[in-house]
Amino acid sequence: MVKIVIVHDRIRYEEKALQKAGFDLGADVSLVDIKNSFIDITEGDVNPEVLKADVILQRCVGHYRALYLTAILESMGIPVINSFQTTLICGDKLLTTLTLRRAGIPTPRTCIAFTRDGALKALSKVGYPAVFKPVIGSWGRLVSLVKDEETAKVVIEHREHLYPLYQIYYIQEYVNKPGRDIRCFVVGDEVIAAIYRYAAPGEWRSNTALGGRAVKMDITEELKELSLKAARAVGAHIVGVDCLEGKNGLLVHELNSVTEFRNAAPATGVDIAKRIVEYAISLVKR
Amino acid sequence: MVKIVIVHDRIRYEEKALQKAGFDLGADVSLVDIKNSFIDITEGDVNPEVLKADVILQRCVGHYRALYLTAILESMGIPVINSFQTTLICGDKLLTTLTLRRAGIPTPRTCIAFTRDGALKALSKVGYPAVFKPVIGSWGRLVSLVKDEETAKVVIEHREHLYPLYQIYYIQEYVNKPGRDIRCFVVGDEVIAAIYRYAAPGEWRSNTALGGRAVKMDITEELKELSLKAARAVGAHIVGVDCLEGKNGLLVHELNSVTEFRNAAPATGVDIAKRIVEYAISLVKR
Amino acid sequence: MVKIVIVHDRIRYEEKALQKAGFDLGADVSLVDIKNSFIDITEGDVNPEVLKADVILQRCVGHYRALYLTAILESMGIPVINSFQTTLICGDKLLTTLTLRRAGIPTPRTCIAFTRDGALKALSKVGYPAVFKPVIGSWGRLVSLVKDEETAKVVIEHREHLYPLYQIYYIQEYVNKPGRDIRCFVVGDEVIAAIYRYAAPGEWRSNTALGGRAVKMDITEELKELSLKAARAVGAHIVGVDCLEGKNGLLVHELNSVTEFRNAAPATGVDIAKRIVEYAISLVKR
Amino acid sequence: MVKIVIVHDRIRYEEKALQKAGFDLGADVSLVDIKNSFIDITEGDVNPEVLKADVILQRCVGHYRALYLTAILESMGIPVINSFQTTLICGDKLLTTLTLRRAGIPTPRTCIAFTRDGALKALSKVGYPAVFKPVIGSWGRLVSLVKDEETAKVVIEHREHLYPLYQIYYIQEYVNKPGRDIRCFVVGDEVIAAIYRYAAPGEWRSNTALGGRAVKMDITEELKELSLKAARAVGAHIVGVDCLEGKNGLLVHELNSVTEFRNAAPATGVDIAKRIVEYAISLVKR
Repeated sequence: MVKIVIVHDRIRYEEKALQKAGFDLGADVSLVDIKNSFIDITEGDVNPEVLKADVILQRCVGHYRALYLTAILESMGIPVINSFQTTLICGDKLLTTLTLRRAGIPTPRTCIAFTRDGALKALSKVGYPAVFKPVIGSWGRLVSLVKDEETAKVVIEHREHLYPLYQIYYIQEYVNKPGRDIRCFVVGDEVIAAIYRYAAPGEWRSNTALGGRAVKMDITEELKELSLKAARAVGAHIVGVDCLEGKNGLLVHELNSVTEFRNAAPATGVDIAKRIVEYAISLVKR
Repeated sequence: MVKIVIVHDRIRYEEKALQKAGFDLGADVSLVDIKNSFIDITEGDVNPEVLKADVILQRCVGHYRALYLTAILESMGIPVINSFQTTLICGDKLLTTLTLRRAGIPTPRTCIAFTRDGALKALSKVGYPAVFKPVIGSWGRLVSLVKDEETAKVVIEHREHLYPLYQIYYIQEYVNKPGRDIRCFVVGDEVIAAIYRYAAPGEWRSNTALGGRAVKMDITEELKELSLKAARAVGAHIVGVDCLEGKNGLLVHELNSVTEFRNAAPATGVDIAKRIVEYAISLVKR
Repeated sequence: MVKIVIVHDRIRYEEKALQKAGFDLGADVSLVDIKNSFIDITEGDVNPEVLKADVILQRCVGHYRALYLTAILESMGIPVINSFQTTLICGDKLLTTLTLRRAGIPTPRTCIAFTRDGALKALSKVGYPAVFKPVIGSWGRLVSLVKDEETAKVVIEHREHLYPLYQIYYIQEYVNKPGRDIRCFVVGDEVIAAIYRYAAPGEWRSNTALGGRAVKMDITEELKELSLKAARAVGAHIVGVDCLEGKNGLLVHELNSVTEFRNAAPATGVDIAKRIVEYAISLVKR
Repeated sequence: MVKIVIVHDRIRYEEKALQKAGFDLGADVSLVDIKNSFIDITEGDVNPEVLKADVILQRCVGHYRALYLTAILESMGIPVINSFQTTLICGDKLLTTLTLRRAGIPTPRTCIAFTRDGALKALSKVGYPAVFKPVIGSWGRLVSLVKDEETAKVVIEHREHLYPLYQIYYIQEYVNKPGRDIRCFVVGDEVIAAIYRYAAPGEWRSNTALGGRAVKMDITEELKELSLKAARAVGAHIVGVDCLEGKNGLLVHELNSVTEFRNAAPATGVDIAKRIVEYAISLVKR
């Protein structure tokens, strides 16, 4: 019997759905909460459930927890979905952009600066409005639409009061999307589902955490090709690919290596949890 | 003429010494301050000096600046000393420990936890006193000697008020060193110099930023072998390797990919700047 | 009918108990959540319920919310329990100590410093172990028992990463209490209840938020006299007075102007909510 | 001989000028750096120079240092310029506004909120553009011009990542001043100098710390009357009064209890340091 271990720090809809899917598919799926224990990296000592796993599904909400736990588990020789490298890149908007660009995948224009002055210069080249994003951070948090230089200065001044990572200024052209973006789910070599995410009223960001609404989208050839290419570029097994509708076609802008799907599953009618667990089982049996 | 570009965010002794060494060695060495400009990663647009470089010496003081600037330059096809991968690992104590351990290099015992409870459990296994380190951070900052559970709780409670990265609890056995540690300089395949760093009075950490005093050390076979092995494990061209004197021999505990040497050069009589520039030139000519 | 308005930012046991007590006593008690609205201080425009109040009970959990809301309401001429001056002093350990000392009330020995060096000098005079407290903060948060200079340095270094207020170093002698302290409830001119708070196992702080256990205590003459004197010194209507059992008698160390009593009420059998509302009514009718 | 002690944490132009003025006027002026020492508030033990002072000039740059040091010195019976009460009010924009309003002094319209939702409601009432200020903070820091709701949300989201005090939302109408404001210097019962502060190019805030330029202004009757009234309202001996030119006359918006004058003195030709020391001497002799 295939043994899948879901490591997590909180049990959400997704974790429950994955466990249920495992039960239905005849796999042994256990949930291991990493908050209760520690790992002795010298002795390779960790929760014994984890050591018995054929494959680990990394489901920690905290980015740093997911990243470091994956690094540790991999270094113990345990396969993790997704890998450390994938988690590192997808969790970091700057590394994502570099990876997409190198792979020839269309992505919004992006400039990087390291100081207030550099950022203002970058902005005057990118043009207003522009989007200011923390390189690490989820759910659209602190992603700021910056309409003019005055606003840019306000954002930068606040950033200077935060942790140094927030002073890596990631500045992106604003893609005048029709009030929505696209989230598409890649599992292995397949695009299994896609949704439009419509921004909530009074909010330009379409993240579901910010009230974005999920609506089923038909998977076009363009979306399929780009998403699979992006997934391969970051080496992902399972990944959420976020796209914007640009003037000249789709632009990939973010990837999520620990993807949420509580809204996408009912909107699309696809049993995403089941597809993920099937994939994990097939990976073990390969 | 070999063109070396030193990217930096502050000019210290080291940057001046490197530029002078370049002049003496007939190389074209220019200093580029990254604080004044920005990089357009979509168009590959950056300070033109940088584009003309045969090789870049990464010398930013800010860790995140060094890390991301290296990622960008590498993705433009410009060789950087050190590489992104090396900078990533050396800048991160957890990734360093995993890498050393995988390479079979002796390193102090280390446990990782993600919450207060996990950290307290880890500490009771490692035993007191233990050393609490932020996974990212330089100059011994916030590296805390924790003598008992009460003190551990104090440290953890303070950490919980900081950026989430500080809640990745990296806990290490305290190596009862004789009031000093070892810093050894690897350039290419050679160990070019080594010093003891004696902790300042009233301070257990031996970082020179905390008043540690540099004293020349003879390079032993053990030190040489371990340092080169560690440098190779992280893929470094030029690296400072920090060792502790354990009961059963040396233990490597940290590596520095943007190493300072203003104290080590006079203490050892070795012209470290010259050796670094020679190496960079040889790398280009190879 | 007397109109009492409880302003709050969260409804806890205490707020419900106060409302129920008002109902039983025939007063009109309404709860106003300050999170939903704003105050126009130029026009004196605020939630209309608030303007109809004969007296306000300030019950915000957030210290700054309580402090500033009280300042605003008072400046509109509305009586608030407790006053701005009382809230300011009780919410600030340094101002509390100064006030107690001026009133001749025994309080633990306290030194203040503004830098690391000053704090270490203060500690070497106060002697170890000592108690390090943030001047503003509740529930024992970041209150640190510091056993020796090494630990002090650890605490200070962490404090330097926090908001500047945390660099006002408030250092207090450690009173070797028998694993408990005393919380005593003053309403008007009466001490209505008192409890011992026993620290939870493995925790030296006796705050109930940290698992401290409430046990009824008989109100001694000494406690009564000191508590009333302390309440008068800070000008409080209703206040929780915290005492320690020192070698030469009780020491008052903290006062709480928005006091919790969910544990003290059952432990003592005193209907604290009722006593508070009765007092508020009597104040209006006076 | 009158003994004046300047307590400070950094020696700037102002502290040197004050000391020189004391020398010229035959007073004994000493500088005491509070960073080097601590205060035993139980024993009333402090730097002995301080205890010999007839009057203290509080000149700490750090707001919290100035505030608490003044509280301590006053509680020891030593007169401080300015008093704790004055320092508390002037250091806090909310308390300043309440005090000005109560004294009938024209001040820009101001609303207060405690949450994101409340702040957005306040803004829609005040109208855009509006000014968002931290209640505590100097040199225009984090004072943000907010042009529309989108920008307001950006500011608020960043504020939520800072210390809780930053979640006291102080929202003020934007006074469409002619690119300048007024800083006026009150010493005792006199207005001794006034300047226009012209904002630097590309900056709407006129703070000299942000490049604002000082230009002499003639002291009008209106300015004189308002400034003295404001100084009296906050109980200040020596204070910088900041005014805006509104449609219907001047509006007082901020007061500075530890005022800088390195630009104002040359711009106006007034020896501000001398006037301050003369005042301090007269106060002692009174």
